Amino acid sequence: MQKIRIGIVGYGNLGRGVELAIGNNPDMELVAVFSRRSLSGTKSGVPVISVNDAAAYKEKIDVMLLCGGSATDLIEQGPLIASLFNTVDSFDTHAKINDYFASMNTIAENSGTVATISVGWDPGLFSLNRLLASAVLPDGTNHTFWGKGVSQGHSDAIRRIAGVKDAKQYTVPKEQVIASLRAGEVLDVSSTTAHTRECYVVAESGADLDAITKEIKTMPHYFEGYETHVTFISEEELQAEHAGYPHGGFVFRTGSTSPKTNHVMEFALKLDSNPEFTSSVLVAYARATFRLAQKGSTGAFTVFDIPFGLLSPKSGEELRATML
Amino acid sequence: MQKIRIGIVGYGNLGRGVELAIGNNPDMELVAVFSRRSLSGTKSGVPVISVNDAAAYKEKIDVMLLCGGSATDLIEQGPLIASLFNTVDSFDTHAKINDYFASMNTIAENSGTVATISVGWDPGLFSLNRLLASAVLPDGTNHTFWGKGVSQGHSDAIRRIAGVKDAKQYTVPKEQVIASLRAGEVLDVSSTTAHTRECYVVAESGADLDAITKEIKTMPHYFEGYETHVTFISEEELQAEHAGYPHGGFVFRTGSTSPKTNHVMEFALKLDSNPEFTSSVLVAYARATFRLAQKGSTGAFTVFDIPFGLLSPKSGEELRATML
Repeated sequence: MQKIRIGIVGYGNLGRGVELAIGNNPDMELVAVFSRRSLSGTKSGVPVISVNDAAAYKEKIDVMLLCGGSATDLIEQGPLIASLFNTVDSFDTHAKINDYFASMNTIAENSGTVATISVGWDPGLFSLNRLLASAVLPDGTNHTFWGKGVSQGHSDAIRRIAGVKDAKQYTVPKEQVIASLRAGEVLDVSSTTAHTRECYVVAESGADLDAITKEIKTMPHYFEGYETHVTFISEEELQAEHAGYPHGGFVFRTGSTSPKTNHVMEFALKLDSNPEFTSSVLVAYARATFRLAQKGSTGAFTVFDIPFGLLSPKSGEELRATML
Repeated sequence: MQKIRIGIVGYGNLGRGVELAIGNNPDMELVAVFSRRSLSGTKSGVPVISVNDAAAYKEKIDVMLLCGGSATDLIEQGPLIASLFNTVDSFDTHAKINDYFASMNTIAENSGTVATISVGWDPGLFSLNRLLASAVLPDGTNHTFWGKGVSQGHSDAIRRIAGVKDAKQYTVPKEQVIASLRAGEVLDVSSTTAHTRECYVVAESGADLDAITKEIKTMPHYFEGYETHVTFISEEELQAEHAGYPHGGFVFRTGSTSPKTNHVMEFALKLDSNPEFTSSVLVAYARATFRLAQKGSTGAFTVFDIPFGLLSPKSGEELRATML
């Protein structure tokens, strides 16, 4: 069987996670890693190619996994790569998702490609559960809690600030809010009021710490509105105390179908490594993206538009026999 | 906006649950209930029509929800109704799902209808989570636990036995098995070894209790292989102690993406009323079935083949803005 040929754009935590995940999926092979930077090599031994030379791989790659951060990378790279390849990305700036969808949709339709956007666990698997639960229990309320865990997107966003050498951002759910909701209290909570954001920042020597703190706390879409704590630490402390990328969280809906008849639907994740898990989700959606393209689909897709059957290497008949 | 016109075939617990659920979905309306028996009326006031006269409603109903049990009803009624209408059913005899799918697929394709089979929470929402988790974490193990709760399918199956007046069957997960799996033990468990089946049976006066017990315990697909307990009780005790239909359960997958990097994905339900919840799932899939038919699709579908976006009354743009 012809394997699904994958390319990775961006070789940070997520890109390296995809490289690892492809090794767990025998129906796929990694062809190359594309980067703006010159890299010393890849773990799997596939070549590193300048992202400017990607067009030369048009016939050699079935799906490109875009592993940059949404704050700046994807807005630029997404449309560029989608004009040449089928793509999967993890665009996660919620407020801009429809704009990004529209721009990727136009480019993918015009180029005859499939662009699957905003894949991961949130946006992604959590979104799917919010939609499903809302459709099944129209009379109810969704709640989403993240963490405690490291948010890569938020850590990246801090790292891009002038004067920041490195950073880790933990999203921490407010235990009191969870306890109240579970106890059936009706609270007007949002993600902003239900979580705190804890930032551990290594500053460049001589940097203006107050300016960095202010830039973090007021960053739109990422920190603005949240209870955000910024702590400056040494590079050694960051490596010793904040090396891993654990994460997790849960989304649940409480709803009723008739008076006094209540139901709870819950989806929960406990992850030792957020980038390894997120990239495993991207890889499963790369399989679906490849199949959509094979069927002649074009344009932008989200997890809402893709049936789960396309995610699995098994046939429909096998899936019905073993998992239905 | 034209509402989606629904018909119900079978007016037991599930049919009455669908009637209730349609009231929670303003984009739908119930047209009629179809039954083999003569009923005194319906709660919502829609007419009761003989199932033999269903053909007369071909132009008046968009989707028929088949609310009979799979053991006998659906095998006969499914193909019959699918030759005239788009259908949704909750066929749940796992071992026969591919046969049923094949027969419904042929009929629906030939008749230009959409037949969505095996909808509910298991098969249904639990199946979706097994598939998703298996695709994201290829190196892992799925576990499904049901209950403690009343299984309608199993209760129905007991009620069909000669000499049985009424019955309730509880599925009970073995706590010790759950505890071991959560503690990370690798156990070779199946649904059969992980649950007991507790049957409370009201026998007709003079019935052969030993024969009933034997017929229950040896019933293929339903009880055979399970640790099954049968208790005969009075009609009064059944009504006093076993009136409701609570249920629930959870499906989780433990898997790893690299050595020592482990993840848990879990989906859980806590339901005050299994029939009310199951019928809410059927109704959401009726919306999807209607839309598939509008797009010109024909043939059999399962939850694996249907993108979540079709389940919601909201547009793709609204969903991306509010739930992604």
